[in-house]
Amino acid sequence: MFLPQMMKVETASLLKEKVYLDNNATTFLHPRLREMVPLWLEHSGNPSSIHWGGRGPKNLIREARQNVAHMIGSDILEVVFTASGSESNNTILKGVYFQQMKAPKPRRHYLIGAVEHPSVLVTSKFLESLGAEIDYIPVTPEGSIDLDVFKSKLRPDTALVSCMLANNETGSIFPIKKMAALAHDVGALFHTDAVQALGKIPVNVKDLGVDFASLAGHKFYSLRGVGVLYQKRGTSFESLIHGGGQERHRRAGTENTLAIASLGFMAGEIKNLQSYYENMKSLRDHFESQVLERIPNVSITGSLSPRLPNTSSLVIEGVEGETLLMNLDMEGFAISTGAACSSGNPEPSSTLMAMGLTRRQAQSSLRVSLGWQTRREEIEAFILCLEDVVQRLRSFQNTGNYGEGEYA
Amino acid sequence: MFLPQMMKVETASLLKEKVYLDNNATTFLHPRLREMVPLWLEHSGNPSSIHWGGRGPKNLIREARQNVAHMIGSDILEVVFTASGSESNNTILKGVYFQQMKAPKPRRHYLIGAVEHPSVLVTSKFLESLGAEIDYIPVTPEGSIDLDVFKSKLRPDTALVSCMLANNETGSIFPIKKMAALAHDVGALFHTDAVQALGKIPVNVKDLGVDFASLAGHKFYSLRGVGVLYQKRGTSFESLIHGGGQERHRRAGTENTLAIASLGFMAGEIKNLQSYYENMKSLRDHFESQVLERIPNVSITGSLSPRLPNTSSLVIEGVEGETLLMNLDMEGFAISTGAACSSGNPEPSSTLMAMGLTRRQAQSSLRVSLGWQTRREEIEAFILCLEDVVQRLRSFQNTGNYGEGEYA
Repeated sequence: MFLPQMMKVETASLLKEKVYLDNNATTFLHPRLREMVPLWLEHSGNPSSIHWGGRGPKNLIREARQNVAHMIGSDILEVVFTASGSESNNTILKGVYFQQMKAPKPRRHYLIGAVEHPSVLVTSKFLESLGAEIDYIPVTPEGSIDLDVFKSKLRPDTALVSCMLANNETGSIFPIKKMAALAHDVGALFHTDAVQALGKIPVNVKDLGVDFASLAGHKFYSLRGVGVLYQKRGTSFESLIHGGGQERHRRAGTENTLAIASLGFMAGEIKNLQSYYENMKSLRDHFESQVLERIPNVSITGSLSPRLPNTSSLVIEGVEGETLLMNLDMEGFAISTGAACSSGNPEPSSTLMAMGLTRRQAQSSLRVSLGWQTRREEIEAFILCLEDVVQRLRSFQNTGNYGEGEYA
Repeated sequence: MFLPQMMKVETASLLKEKVYLDNNATTFLHPRLREMVPLWLEHSGNPSSIHWGGRGPKNLIREARQNVAHMIGSDILEVVFTASGSESNNTILKGVYFQQMKAPKPRRHYLIGAVEHPSVLVTSKFLESLGAEIDYIPVTPEGSIDLDVFKSKLRPDTALVSCMLANNETGSIFPIKKMAALAHDVGALFHTDAVQALGKIPVNVKDLGVDFASLAGHKFYSLRGVGVLYQKRGTSFESLIHGGGQERHRRAGTENTLAIASLGFMAGEIKNLQSYYENMKSLRDHFESQVLERIPNVSITGSLSPRLPNTSSLVIEGVEGETLLMNLDMEGFAISTGAACSSGNPEPSSTLMAMGLTRRQAQSSLRVSLGWQTRREEIEAFILCLEDVVQRLRSFQNTGNYGEGEYA
């Protein structure tokens, strides 16, 4: 597609609005939810109340649970609502650990993905401080997992394997179905953090064969404040939040009816996933091919492995990622250097380092993540803007840092 | 006040709307929040993002934190946002326990109120299973705490005392300020669950002298999905939810901007507490005096101790509480037999049993809890309806259960 040179200097004004390309950090609310929220707010009673005040919210939650169960291919009673993906991840890692501790001969070995979300990695460190043996599943430079290596790390005393379905930074999709089967061969439980996969690829827990899975509403166009923990029937874990009997004694605390209803609504929208998938993938692929063609010394991380359709992780040599982000922000484009959770953190991405990138490469990385709402003209404008800003920064850098450049 | 006899049979239609008198279970959303929610929904970015998408939510959270800190008399950095009161309670009990476990000589003794919320009591049982020594602070038949008894239970190895500021079922207010000072004398930390006190009496953590306090938005006319953990500067605890660096590494998970903003808004409304206090107290006192005058064999539990202005815990002899609740529900009145968290639980209230009530008395109990919005005509209608329903149930019961009654 031809784009005239003169447009380069006015990318920001091209669209007359801001462009959000950081959907792996959080998604914006689905437009339909704005209409629904006022209706759901009418049901602000306590779902545990047995009088009229409890009936409306109880029905909303029941319907949401049905929708979520249908979306992930589980039974209704296997769906536990939490407040966030982080809570779901903490619940399973700690819940399995404390459940194991009750056994006469507890299994003490935990196998954790090397590039997991901090809510898994930091929780693992905590379990290690309590006496658990934590081991990590390495990733290849292409961001995939070698099944032979994984198999060799499983032990007869492995209690739990926790590995994400898709990575938040590179979009790499891991072979969870095969890994879960291998884990079950040694009698270990299997948990997958599917937070980044939801809304991008199908997430079917029965097909994956996992025992536990985590989801988060706010990465799926829903309101903040709701997560899901899928718990396979027959498994057990110690609660993270003890108290009232909500969620069949698996998670205490008055239910967040509004947020749960919003996730239930979105679960109903999953029927349109295929077309969103294709749109995101076609735009992402167009973006990457244009960037590789127009900007020299750029590489795409993990592009040879199975990937989410919406995520692009770039290394742009000679440009500092944080500086690039701020310049793009000034032009109205929201992107990220890595996981938003660690934004402002001067350390380079541990995920990229685990994949074998150098510190310098990791510091020159950029994550672009598309959403259901992303339009072609937004991507076109972004390509132009990125080319322009990278060129500008590289020339500054050459002038400033090395005493050379156009006047040298 | 004179109310004609004929009104008795048509209490439900008197107001032509339902009457909510279960504000200790949950409060209904403050009407102003319905206007604010759509505005706040415009800021659905991730507060951790450093681009434009993060700035709006970050500002909303900052403002809410200032309002909450101002409301409870704390510093801004002492306010930690959680997802619920239950989460705040779990965080402190487990967080202090695991923090202690890192010490060379951990304190192992925990002193817990006998009538705490399940999120404290069940969590204590969990800590006991890990090796903590749990002891309980008894309550007198009037629902108060004897400071000498409390003092005698403190030990040099007491790690933490956890006692609610006000009870959810009887409204009893406990002498937290004196208890905290006594706990500090032995070097113990002090936590108060102030969830039921907020919005009914002033909650000033500096004045109370506590180290930790829990609050919940949904008991205070805010959206579900936000709680507060007050943490006194200089104290430390192990996080309940590990992961990203949110809330200064004290509570991981993407912030629930919308719910936090709603609590911040309500914190600003606390300036009107005095007038709400007086309105609720005057209506509650009127209700109790009328009930005692008009319905025979009724007693008010804990009425001689300091109490919340909005709560009335009744024992209505010869009437089964659950049946009464359902009959009042049919007339449009929402009340509770005990804590809503345990509604549907056939066991009589453990709080009332701990105060020395018999099983039969506890099963004949009713909790009426008023809110900021409660109007005089609602209370008048409720008095009439209660008199009517109690009379009816007593006559049925006499006929059915004992083979006696009006025809015997």
